[in-house]
Amino acid sequence: MRFEALSVFPEVFDPYLDASIMGRARRARIFSFQAHDLRDWTHDRHRTVDDAPFGGGPGMLMKPAPIFEAVEDLSARGEARPRVVFFSPCGRPFDQGYAADLARTPRVLLVCARYEGVDERAYSLADDVVSLGDYVLTGGELAALVLIDACVRLLPGALGDEASAQDESFSASLLEYAQYTRPASYRGMDVPEVLLSGDHARVDAWRRADALERTARWRPDLLDGAGLTDDEWARAREARREGGPCDGRA
Amino acid sequence: MRFEALSVFPEVFDPYLDASIMGRARRARIFSFQAHDLRDWTHDRHRTVDDAPFGGGPGMLMKPAPIFEAVEDLSARGEARPRVVFFSPCGRPFDQGYAADLARTPRVLLVCARYEGVDERAYSLADDVVSLGDYVLTGGELAALVLIDACVRLLPGALGDEASAQDESFSASLLEYAQYTRPASYRGMDVPEVLLSGDHARVDAWRRADALERTARWRPDLLDGAGLTDDEWARAREARREGGPCDGRA
Repeated sequence: MRFEALSVFPEVFDPYLDASIMGRARRARIFSFQAHDLRDWTHDRHRTVDDAPFGGGPGMLMKPAPIFEAVEDLSARGEARPRVVFFSPCGRPFDQGYAADLARTPRVLLVCARYEGVDERAYSLADDVVSLGDYVLTGGELAALVLIDACVRLLPGALGDEASAQDESFSASLLEYAQYTRPASYRGMDVPEVLLSGDHARVDAWRRADALERTARWRPDLLDGAGLTDDEWARAREARREGGPCDGRA
Repeated sequence: MRFEALSVFPEVFDPYLDASIMGRARRARIFSFQAHDLRDWTHDRHRTVDDAPFGGGPGMLMKPAPIFEAVEDLSARGEARPRVVFFSPCGRPFDQGYAADLARTPRVLLVCARYEGVDERAYSLADDVVSLGDYVLTGGELAALVLIDACVRLLPGALGDEASAQDESFSASLLEYAQYTRPASYRGMDVPEVLLSGDHARVDAWRRADALERTARWRPDLLDGAGLTDDEWARAREARREGGPCDGRA
């Protein structure tokens, strides 16, 4: 899978993508990445990419022309036309389903805005407009790194253990069950006895019930997609009645 | 404002936090940042931070002891006890309101997990458990960078133009209005005439109406908190009827 980014700070990507799991996957050619400097598609001496907004207001906007020229130029290069992704609070929420869909795409071009955003007309170039969440960042570069990280770890071979990406939050529309490692008792807090029993059927049943309970308590909105049995729905309603607020785990 | 991160990859933060707006704000001492290597709180020759999960399953978990010892040790240092933030899909959603709240906190310690996650008991150390969105990352380091970026840009002086952080998406519970810069006509797409009029009252009215329309079309869930007039509610309902799906802008 090939990722490209269009940015006025093309140097911020490599340090993260060369480290740790991303670095190993990149060196193993599980994915490739190239950042392009948007200023390479300007034609003035100062390589200007921004301009003041029509109608007034603070800050500067990204001009349409360099983005149009860059996206068209890059799209014409290479074998596959890229899927062009913009980031905006107006976009579709980035979630695990979208990451999995994107991970099946051979080539993705991530357009990273800065300043107050991009001229609205540039969005006509987008195949997808994606929102990372209900917050504002100084630029799209971190959003691009989050998207790449979430996609790459779904690619075959990217994680050391193939199974790791399957049994986790969102993969079955439930939050993940609580996990524990040694010691069995730490500072007066004990690991649930069933996890020490060696009885795999009981462990599996406990984990499913715990995932259900945590989801019911903290993210009941996810339950509809989880294919619960009637009995599980009853347990979910029970957990909601008992449960505290989302940050109650603190 | 002081940020600290606890991580087994303490080197991945600085390249981003020394670049661009973050770098300028950091050099201007608007915020400070220090990454701590979690392995400094291990006591074995291999500096082990992970162990196999009780009950079996793929991957490794973060052991509780190094995290407990590190958070307690770091909390005892310095003048203010830090607000301790963990990341988890089970956490409260990270949003602009939480970023603004955190930006009023003198010291924040971000605990960045890796592998399959942390031993459940470690969450007892958290003041807040935060979720960036419904997706899974290889580690908490990118989540920490996103959180820092979103907070720092709200600190006085961090953005060049003080007003920039005020008139944007979520600051008034609405998505931001469409923005345009020169040229007034580009590839057959024209900037709305009102924005060229120089009539500030008309521009302001257009922008409010456009923000309302975009929010109604793409994020109607935000409208309840936006303090709309009866007339604006009527227009919002109209926009929803006309509007396409969230990704219809592509």
